[in-house]
Amino acid sequence: MRTIISLDIGGTQLRAAVYQDDKREAVTQKRIKTNANEPDTFGRLLKLIEDVMPRDGKVDAIGASCPGPVDPKTGVIMFTPNIKEWRDFPFAAKLMKSFGVPTYVDNDANLAGLAEWKFGAARGHHNVLYFTVSTGVGGGVIINDRLLQGTHGLAAELGHTTVQADGPVCGCGQRGHLESFSSGTGIERFVADQLKAGRESTLRAEKKNSARDISEAASQGDALSIEAYQIAGKYLGIGVANFLHIFNPSVVVFGGGVSQSGPLLFDAFDVSLKEHVIHPRYLEGLVIARAELGDDSGLLGARALAELKLDA
Amino acid sequence: MRTIISLDIGGTQLRAAVYQDDKREAVTQKRIKTNANEPDTFGRLLKLIEDVMPRDGKVDAIGASCPGPVDPKTGVIMFTPNIKEWRDFPFAAKLMKSFGVPTYVDNDANLAGLAEWKFGAARGHHNVLYFTVSTGVGGGVIINDRLLQGTHGLAAELGHTTVQADGPVCGCGQRGHLESFSSGTGIERFVADQLKAGRESTLRAEKKNSARDISEAASQGDALSIEAYQIAGKYLGIGVANFLHIFNPSVVVFGGGVSQSGPLLFDAFDVSLKEHVIHPRYLEGLVIARAELGDDSGLLGARALAELKLDA
Repeated sequence: MRTIISLDIGGTQLRAAVYQDDKREAVTQKRIKTNANEPDTFGRLLKLIEDVMPRDGKVDAIGASCPGPVDPKTGVIMFTPNIKEWRDFPFAAKLMKSFGVPTYVDNDANLAGLAEWKFGAARGHHNVLYFTVSTGVGGGVIINDRLLQGTHGLAAELGHTTVQADGPVCGCGQRGHLESFSSGTGIERFVADQLKAGRESTLRAEKKNSARDISEAASQGDALSIEAYQIAGKYLGIGVANFLHIFNPSVVVFGGGVSQSGPLLFDAFDVSLKEHVIHPRYLEGLVIARAELGDDSGLLGARALAELKLDA
Repeated sequence: MRTIISLDIGGTQLRAAVYQDDKREAVTQKRIKTNANEPDTFGRLLKLIEDVMPRDGKVDAIGASCPGPVDPKTGVIMFTPNIKEWRDFPFAAKLMKSFGVPTYVDNDANLAGLAEWKFGAARGHHNVLYFTVSTGVGGGVIINDRLLQGTHGLAAELGHTTVQADGPVCGCGQRGHLESFSSGTGIERFVADQLKAGRESTLRAEKKNSARDISEAASQGDALSIEAYQIAGKYLGIGVANFLHIFNPSVVVFGGGVSQSGPLLFDAFDVSLKEHVIHPRYLEGLVIARAELGDDSGLLGARALAELKLDA
C-alpha cells in the first residue's frame, strides 16, 4: 500500500491529508488556522502532520503546496507573502529530518494546475495551461505530461508578464503585467482610480471596494464596474493569446475567485482572445474550462507531485 | 552505422547534407537555389536529395528544417512565406513515400534552438531559450532536454506575443508584438515613421532604409538610428524578462542578423532586462550567449531532431 501525506500551506489555513493508493478521497484530513503572525508556524505544521500520521507510521512521501516562490529542486521556500518567518526556509529538508520520508514541494499555482491535469478539468490532456485569477494572477503549465518548473523552479509566473509596457503598476512593482489588469487587485485599482478622478458610479470613493463589491455593482448595471471587468477580460484575452502562441496547449483551465465572474469577465475575454490569436489553428479543438477541484486543488496537487516523483 | 539526411529549406536556398554517426561534419552536402517563384520546388528538392544520397541507399531518417508553421506530428507544412505552392503540404508523407525512410520536420527557429542545444552555445543546458532576431523574431525553447512543440506543433512563437497592447502593427497584423519592436522590420518601420514625421537624420525618407543601413548610420552617430536600436533593445529586454518568468531557463541564445548589432542593441537590452526581471534569482547563473552555428543551424537542427526521434 502506498501512503502519501499531502500539505496545503495557505495564508489562513494549514491543511493536511493522508491519501492511500488510488483512492480519490483522503483517508484522514485536518485543518488548523495558520496564525501567520504568531511565531513557530512550522511547529504548528509538525503537530498537524503528527495528528494525521497513520498509526503504523508508514508513509512513502510528503507533498506540499506552498504560497510564494519555492525551489522544487532544493525544497527551499524563498519567501511567502504571509508567513514572514519563512525566508530562504529549507522546508523540505526540515520535514525530511522530522519524518524520515522524501518530501516534495512546489508553489500553489503550479500544483493547482497539476491537480486539474491529474484529477480535474484537464484530465487526459498532455499540454495544459492553468490560470488562477484571484487577488493575483498565477499559472501552472503542463507540457507533455510534465510540470513546467524551470532551472530554479521559478517558471510559469504567467501573471508577471508584460502586456502593456507603460501600463499600471503591478503588485510586484513592474508596470503593465497581466496581473495588473486582470486580477482582483487590478480591477479594484482601476475602479479606485476612476472614482478618484470623479467618475460617476454607484460605488463610493471613500470606501475600499473589493472585486466582489464591484462585481455586485456591475450586476446592478453600474457602468464603471462593468467596464472594470471588461478591461480585465480584454487583457486576459491578450495574455492567454500570448500563452497559446508560446505553449499551444489543448486546454486552458481557469481557477480562483475572480474567474467565477461568468459573462461579466468572460464575454470580453472571448472576444479579445479570438481577436488576438495569430492563426485560427491555435483555437482548433482548444478546450476552455473552469477548474473542478476548488479548495482541494492544493492537497490534490501536492499528492500528484509526490506520486509523480515516486513513479519517476 | 547511422546515416541521416538533413534538409534546410530556405527562401533562397535548399540545402541537403548527409551525417554519419557522431561525426560533426557532413560527409556530403549540396545546395541549390530555391527559385520559389518557379513551379515544382518539391521536385527540385527530391533531385537534391538523390544527389546526396549514399551509394548504398542506406538512410535511417530524414530531418528537415522548414520556414513557416509546420505540424511536427503530421509533417504537414501549413504555409511558408516564400514557397507559395506549399499550403497544407504533406511534406513528410511525400518524402517518406519517395524514400521509404522516417521523416521528421519542424520549423527553422525551433530547430536552430535545438541545434544550439545539441551542438552550439547551449550545450550542456537543460532549459534553453533561443531567439532569432532578423527580419522577424522567432523562438525555439528546450525544456528538460525536450523541444517545446505544443499540441499542433505551433508553440514557441515568441515574437508574436504582445508586450504593448496599443503598439505598432506587426507583420502578422496584430499590434504591439515583440517582433513589431525588436525585429529588423520593426527597426525599419520606426525609422520610416520618424522620417516621414520630419525627424532629422542622415538617412533620407525617400529611400527604403534597411536595418543594416540604420545600423551603419548609428555607427556614424545618427541620433534617430541609435534611438531605433535602443527601442528595439528595450523591448527585447521586456520580452526576454517575460520569457524568464515563463520558462526560467539557464541560457538565452541569440541568433539572426539583427542580433549581431552588438552594443548598439544589447546595451539597451541589458539595462531593460535587469529593470524588468521580478526577482534577481532569474538572472543568477543565467548565461546570455550568441548563437555559434550560423548558417548550419538548420541542417544541424534537422539532424538533431532526427537523432532524438530515432533514440526515443
